[in-house]
Amino acid sequence: MISRLLLEAIMELHHPVFQLKDLSHLWHSTIGIEKESLRLKQDGSLSEYPHSTEWGKRTQQPYIQTDFADSQLELITPPVYSAKEARKWLSATHQLVQDTITTQHDDELIWPFSSPGLLPDDVSSIKIAQLENENEYNYRAYLAEVYGKPVQLLCGIHYNFQINPALIEEKVADFNPNLSIKEVTNDLYLTLGRNYLRYRWLLTYFLGAAPYIADNYSTELYGSPKEKAMRSFRQSQYGYNNDEDVSISYASLEAFVSDVEKAVANGQLLLEKELYRDVRFRGQDRYRDLINNGIKYIEFRNFDLNPFDPYGITETDTDFIKLFILTMLFLPQVEKDEEVELGNIMNHVIASNEAHAALPYLAEGEKLVDAMLLVARALDEQQLMNGYFENLVTDKRQQLYHPELTIAGKLVTIIEKEAQAMNKPAENHFLAFGLNLARQHKETYLERDYNLHGFENYEISTQNVLKHAIKAGIKIEEIDPTENLLKFTYNGHSELVKNANMTSLDTQISYFVMENKVATKKVLAQNGIRVPAGNSFTSFEEAARYFPLINFEQFVVKPKNTNYGLGISIFKTFPSRENYEEALQIAFAEDNTVLLEAFMPGTELRFYVQNNNVEAICERQAAQVKGDGHSTVSELIDVVNSNPLRGDNHRSPLVNIGKGRLEQLQLTSQNLTLDSIPEEGQVVYLRENSNISTGGIAIDRTDEVHDDYKRIAIQSAQFLGANFCGVDLIIKDYTQPIVEEADYGVIEANFNPAMMIHLFPGVGQARPLGKAALKQLFPEAPLD
Amino acid sequence: MISRLLLEAIMELHHPVFQLKDLSHLWHSTIGIEKESLRLKQDGSLSEYPHSTEWGKRTQQPYIQTDFADSQLELITPPVYSAKEARKWLSATHQLVQDTITTQHDDELIWPFSSPGLLPDDVSSIKIAQLENENEYNYRAYLAEVYGKPVQLLCGIHYNFQINPALIEEKVADFNPNLSIKEVTNDLYLTLGRNYLRYRWLLTYFLGAAPYIADNYSTELYGSPKEKAMRSFRQSQYGYNNDEDVSISYASLEAFVSDVEKAVANGQLLLEKELYRDVRFRGQDRYRDLINNGIKYIEFRNFDLNPFDPYGITETDTDFIKLFILTMLFLPQVEKDEEVELGNIMNHVIASNEAHAALPYLAEGEKLVDAMLLVARALDEQQLMNGYFENLVTDKRQQLYHPELTIAGKLVTIIEKEAQAMNKPAENHFLAFGLNLARQHKETYLERDYNLHGFENYEISTQNVLKHAIKAGIKIEEIDPTENLLKFTYNGHSELVKNANMTSLDTQISYFVMENKVATKKVLAQNGIRVPAGNSFTSFEEAARYFPLINFEQFVVKPKNTNYGLGISIFKTFPSRENYEEALQIAFAEDNTVLLEAFMPGTELRFYVQNNNVEAICERQAAQVKGDGHSTVSELIDVVNSNPLRGDNHRSPLVNIGKGRLEQLQLTSQNLTLDSIPEEGQVVYLRENSNISTGGIAIDRTDEVHDDYKRIAIQSAQFLGANFCGVDLIIKDYTQPIVEEADYGVIEANFNPAMMIHLFPGVGQARPLGKAALKQLFPEAPLD
Repeated sequence: MISRLLLEAIMELHHPVFQLKDLSHLWHSTIGIEKESLRLKQDGSLSEYPHSTEWGKRTQQPYIQTDFADSQLELITPPVYSAKEARKWLSATHQLVQDTITTQHDDELIWPFSSPGLLPDDVSSIKIAQLENENEYNYRAYLAEVYGKPVQLLCGIHYNFQINPALIEEKVADFNPNLSIKEVTNDLYLTLGRNYLRYRWLLTYFLGAAPYIADNYSTELYGSPKEKAMRSFRQSQYGYNNDEDVSISYASLEAFVSDVEKAVANGQLLLEKELYRDVRFRGQDRYRDLINNGIKYIEFRNFDLNPFDPYGITETDTDFIKLFILTMLFLPQVEKDEEVELGNIMNHVIASNEAHAALPYLAEGEKLVDAMLLVARALDEQQLMNGYFENLVTDKRQQLYHPELTIAGKLVTIIEKEAQAMNKPAENHFLAFGLNLARQHKETYLERDYNLHGFENYEISTQNVLKHAIKAGIKIEEIDPTENLLKFTYNGHSELVKNANMTSLDTQISYFVMENKVATKKVLAQNGIRVPAGNSFTSFEEAARYFPLINFEQFVVKPKNTNYGLGISIFKTFPSRENYEEALQIAFAEDNTVLLEAFMPGTELRFYVQNNNVEAICERQAAQVKGDGHSTVSELIDVVNSNPLRGDNHRSPLVNIGKGRLEQLQLTSQNLTLDSIPEEGQVVYLRENSNISTGGIAIDRTDEVHDDYKRIAIQSAQFLGANFCGVDLIIKDYTQPIVEEADYGVIEANFNPAMMIHLFPGVGQARPLGKAALKQLFPEAPLD
Repeated sequence: MISRLLLEAIMELHHPVFQLKDLSHLWHSTIGIEKESLRLKQDGSLSEYPHSTEWGKRTQQPYIQTDFADSQLELITPPVYSAKEARKWLSATHQLVQDTITTQHDDELIWPFSSPGLLPDDVSSIKIAQLENENEYNYRAYLAEVYGKPVQLLCGIHYNFQINPALIEEKVADFNPNLSIKEVTNDLYLTLGRNYLRYRWLLTYFLGAAPYIADNYSTELYGSPKEKAMRSFRQSQYGYNNDEDVSISYASLEAFVSDVEKAVANGQLLLEKELYRDVRFRGQDRYRDLINNGIKYIEFRNFDLNPFDPYGITETDTDFIKLFILTMLFLPQVEKDEEVELGNIMNHVIASNEAHAALPYLAEGEKLVDAMLLVARALDEQQLMNGYFENLVTDKRQQLYHPELTIAGKLVTIIEKEAQAMNKPAENHFLAFGLNLARQHKETYLERDYNLHGFENYEISTQNVLKHAIKAGIKIEEIDPTENLLKFTYNGHSELVKNANMTSLDTQISYFVMENKVATKKVLAQNGIRVPAGNSFTSFEEAARYFPLINFEQFVVKPKNTNYGLGISIFKTFPSRENYEEALQIAFAEDNTVLLEAFMPGTELRFYVQNNNVEAICERQAAQVKGDGHSTVSELIDVVNSNPLRGDNHRSPLVNIGKGRLEQLQLTSQNLTLDSIPEEGQVVYLRENSNISTGGIAIDRTDEVHDDYKRIAIQSAQFLGANFCGVDLIIKDYTQPIVEEADYGVIEANFNPAMMIHLFPGVGQARPLGKAALKQLFPEAPLD
C-alpha cells in the first residue's frame, strides 16, 4: 500500500527548491481557523433565535459569522503565525458569543461535536441563515434541496494556510526561471493540495471525532447511515459530498479550473463554490481568476471538531497540522489524479472505520510520521524549541498502534463506559454527553468576564474596547500590544487607538495641556472655571517671596509632578514663614516647579467626559480595611485582596492593597502598624490618595450628581480642547446645585481617563465606556 | 514749601485701609510700559518709510504701534508684575523693530531721546500715522493744526499701573461699607492720581532727560523755546500741553468727568482724549463710563526716555517708579485742586530748570524720599530682597544734593564735554551724540539674532515662533515657560502651542504612533512605504528564534527606545548565531522590546513636513573635527566649540561637542584619544549619531532633493495622520528619482520635529519654519 514516492522519501526529505534549512521560513507561514458549531437550547434542540444583532452586520463581520443555518456559528480567526495566536482569537469569540447567547438567548449552548446530536423531527424546519444577500440565501436553499439540510449542519474546522510569500519570492529564481512568482506560487499550492489529498487520511485517523450522529440524520445522496458509530460520520460517505459524477482533476490548475467550469456548465454544480473538496484554492472570487491572479492561500476542510476542547481544536493539534502541511511540501510530488483519488478513498475508509479499529495503513502511516519527524527535528533545532515539535510527532506516533488513544477512540471509550453505567446504547448517550461537555465549555467561556479571553496582555479598558469591536465586526490589528496600541477598521475606515481612548478625536496640544497641572489650571481659570487658588514657582526664592501674598488659611505645597505623594505638605492651619519655607524645600527636592494650592474641602469626584457629554461619574475612596476585632491589619488586607476582582497592573478591575513603605507610613499616622488589631468596625486607611491603582475603590455616582457639576466638567473639557477627559472636581455637596463659586473646584483634568473604575465600580452601576468610545470613532458601525 | 500733609507723614506712613503689611500685595500690582520713539535715517532726519507692513495690521497689533507720526514707534508691553518682565518685552520688540528697519529700511535707527534732534525745514512734511481708521487719522490732523506737528513728535514713556484687584476686593469691607468695589476702586485711583500730580516733580528731577531739542522746534501755544537747554523740554511749557483755559478738577471723579465734558462741549477740546495730563484714568472708552463701570488702571505719562538705556528706561528706574506710586498711596490725601495745580507748577519749574541747577524743593524732596524709604524697607523685609529696594531709594537720595548725578545732569555733562572738545555749543552736538547712542543701541538690539531677546528661557524654535507672532501682532500668553507652552490669540482666535509645533493641528494618536518606532514602521509598511525590513521582539527567546528568518546580510539590533546609542549592535557582515544572541542580550538589557532592522546604506536626510508640504530638508552630520597636524583632538573640539552659535540646551542653534564617555568610546573605535594629534585634514568623528544635540551639524538640502522623496515624506506624514512631521529617509542618491524600491527607506518619523536645524543650518539656506507654523495656525494673520 505504501506509495513508491513515499518510500523514496523515507531517508531524506527533499523538495525541488525548498530545503530543510528553509523550514523556519516555512514555519513562518500564516494560518487561519474557521470553526463552525451549532447553537442549541439547553435540551439539545437547535436554537430558534436568529444570529444575534449584537454581532453586527454579517456583510462586515470578520470574526463571528453564520454558515448554512442561522443557528450555525462560524467563528473565524484572522491570519496568524502561531497556534497560540489562533487560540487567542477563538477564545475571545467563543467568550463573546457565549456571553450573548447566555444573556440574550435564554442560556443557549454551543454544541461541541461536528455531527449534530439532535435534529428536529421535521428537518425542513431548520432555518437557513438569514443573509442580507439574496443570492447567498437562495444558494443555501438550493443546497438544502440537493443535499438535504442535515448534511449542511455538519460542522468542522477549516484550516487556512499561506506559504510565507517572502520565501517564495526569495526562491522563485531557483524554480523554473521562466516562471513568474504567480506561476510558481500556483504550482506550489497545486502540488501541496495533491500531496495533502493523498495523505490526509492520517490526520483523519488522529483527529477524526464524530463517532455518533443524531438518529434521524440522513443525506439525499446516501440516505441514512446504517452504522451506529464510526470514526467520523462527517468525513464518511454520509458527510457533505458532491455527486460522484462530479470529476475534478488536480493534475494542473488549468485542468482543475476547466473541470469545475464544465461541472457548472452541465448543471452538476449550481455554482463553482458548490464544489466541496477537502482542499480548496483561495484568493479569487472565480476559479478562473486563480490562473490569472494567483492562488493566495489554501484551505483544508477535513477537520472534525475536537469536542474535548472548548474551541474545537487544541493548540498542539493546530501545530501538528501545520507540521503535516509542511511535510507535504517536502514529500515527492503526487502527480496523477488516480493517486489523489486513492487518497480520497483511503480517507473515507479511515473515517468509516470504527474508532477502535486498527489502522489498516500502518506502514504508510509510519513512513509519513517518519517524514514528519525529520521536519520536526529540523524545526526544533532551528527554532530552539527543545524537542517540542518532535514530541508532537512521537505522541501521535504511538497512536498509530493504539487507536484508543486517538480523539475518536477516547470519545467512544468514555461514551460507551458512561452509557454502560446507565444501561443504554452508547449512541443514545451521545446527546447527553455532548450537552454535558457544552456546559463545561460554557463555564470556561464565561470565567473572568471582565477580561477578553486571549487578550489579557492588554489593559482592562483596551480589552473592553476590543470586546465591542469584535462583536460589532470592527477589524482589529495589533500595532503594538506592549503599548495597548491598536488599529480598528470598519468598512474601509481606520482609526488608531491607544489605551482605549487616546485617539484621533483629541489633539496633540490638549494632551500636553492636561499633562501639565500648571497649564490645565491656567487655561481653566482664564475661562472662568473655578480652580484651587494658588501659584506655581520655579525657584525657592520666588516661592518664599510669595508668603505674604497667600490669601487662604489652608493650603498644600507640592511638586508639580507628584509621584506617590512624595514632597507634599498640607497646612490645615496657616503656617509660620519658617514652616512654609521648609515645605518649599521638601517640594523642590522632588521637582523644579512647585505648586501652592488652596485646600478645598468636599468630596472628590471623577467625571468621565466624552464628546461634550458626561458618560460616568465615580467617587473614589482610598485603600481601606475594616476591623473585625481579632484580625491584624495585615490579615485584613489579605482578606480584601482575596477578592477575585483584585489583581495587579490594570489587568484586573481592582488592584491589591499593598503593604509597602507608603502604606506603613499611612498606618503610622493613625498610630497603627501592620500587626495592629483594629476594633470591630474601625476603618483603617492604607493610603492618603484614593487612586484605584493603589488599592482604592470606586463608587458610581453618575445618577446622583447635580447637573450643574456635569456642566462644569463638560465646559472644562471644552476649554481644554479635549474629547476624552477625566475631570476631577471637589464638591461641597454634589446633590445640590451651585449657589456660590466656593461650592466646587476643578482640581485636575486627565487625558486618557481611566475606564476601569466606571466599567467595574466597586459599588453601583457599570458604564459601557469601551462601547461609547468606539461609537464615536465609528458612528457607522452597529454598536447599539 | 513742604506741605502740611506731607509733614504729618514723615514719621509713619498711613492709609485709611491699606497697611504697610499689605505692601507685598500692592507690589504684586501690574505695570505696563508704552515707549514712544522716532525712526530716523542715518543722518538723523525722520524716516520716510511708512510703518512697516512686517508689523502686521495696526488694528490688531498689541506690541508694535505708531503714535502721532508714521515714523513714531510705540512699543508696548502687556501688563506684567516686574520690571524684569517689562524689560523682556521691550528688548524683544526693539530687536524685532531694529531688525526690520535695518534690513528693509536702509539701516534706519531708533532715536533715543524724548526730544527730536532734527526736524525737517518744512515741519508740515512730517507724515501723520497712516491709520486705517479715518477718525483716528483726522484726529491726528486736528492735533497737528492746533498744537503743531513738532509737539506731537515728543516721545516718552507711559507707565500704566493697576492696583492688585484681589487686594482691593479683600479690603473693600474695611473701606466705607456702603461703597461698592467699583466705587472704592475709583476713589483709590482718584486719590492716587491727585497725590501723584502733587509730588511727581520729584520723578522729573531724577528722571527728566530731554535737555536739548531740535533748533527749529516750536509750539503753537508757546512758540519756540528761548532756552538752549533745560532739564526736560518735553515736560516744560514747550511740551504737549492743553490750552491753559482748559481747567479740570480732580476733586472727585464726577467733577473730573463733568469738566472734561464741558471742555469738549464748549470746543476747548475736540475729543475727550485730547485732554493731555500726566495722569490718565483708564479702562473705559468714555470718561463718563468710568463712573458707571469703574477705573481699571491708571496711566502716568510724565517720563522722558532715558537715552542711556537701549529701551528708554532702566530696570531699576522701573522699580523705583513703582515704589514711588505705592508711596503715593500711603501719603495723606491731597484733596484740593489748588494743591494739584501747585504740583503742576512745581513740575514745570523742575523741568524748566537747567539740568545742573540745585533742587529748589529740597526739604519736600527729602521728606518724600524718607517716605519712600519706609516703603522700601517694609518691602525688602516682606519680599526677602536683601535691601534691594532700600538701595534704589538711597541711590536716588544722594541725587537730591547732586543734580549732576541725575540723568539730565549726566547727559549735559557728557554732551558739553564732547562739544567742548569739538569746539562747538553743546546744543549743536545733541544730534550727533544721540545718533551715536542710537548706533550703540542698534548693536545691542541686533546681537544674538538667533535669539528673541528677553525670551532666551525658551527653546530656539519657540523663540522663532514668538518673533513672528510679535511681529504679526498675535497676542502671546505664557502658559508654562518651563515647558515651552504658549497661548497665541489673534482677533479672538486662540491656539495653544508647545515646543513650537505641537498644536491642535495634530492628533493625540499621531503623537503616540510617532513616539513608537515599532508602530511607526508598521503603519508606514501597511501603507506601502518602504521601511527597513526587520522585526520587533518582546522576549529574548522570540528574538533568538528569528535568527534563521533574517533575510538580509547587514543589520542592526537595538533597544526600542535607544538612549545615547546604548545597547545597539551593528552587523556589517552576517553574524554567527552566538554573536546574534549576544547582541540581543545587550539590547534587552536596555529595553523590554528589541528591534532587528536591516541596515540601509545611503545618505540620511530629515524632511520637515507640514500640512502635506515639505518645508525643509537637512542632511545631518555627526560631531566631527578636522585635524591641523599639531592640535590635539581635545584642542580641536575647543576651537569648534568657540563658535558663538554653539551652546547648550536648545538655547543656541548649534550644540557644543562633548568630551564625555561616548565621545571617548567613538575615538577609541578610531584608535584615538582626546590627546591624539590628528593629521592635517584628517576628519575625526566624536559621535556615531548625527544629532545636532550631540554636536552634529546640519546642511540644508531642500532644493537639491528629488521630488520623488519629497512625495514619500509627505505620504508618510499623511499615513501617520501627522500635520507636523520630521521624516527621516535613507536615500541612495537623493538627486535621482526612485527607480526601484531599494532606493530609499523611511527609518523614522518624528512628532515635534526640530526647527533649529532648518532655521540655522550650518551650511545652506535657512527656512522660515516658525512663520510657517503660525501661518497655518492663523491663516487670517498678516504673516506674509
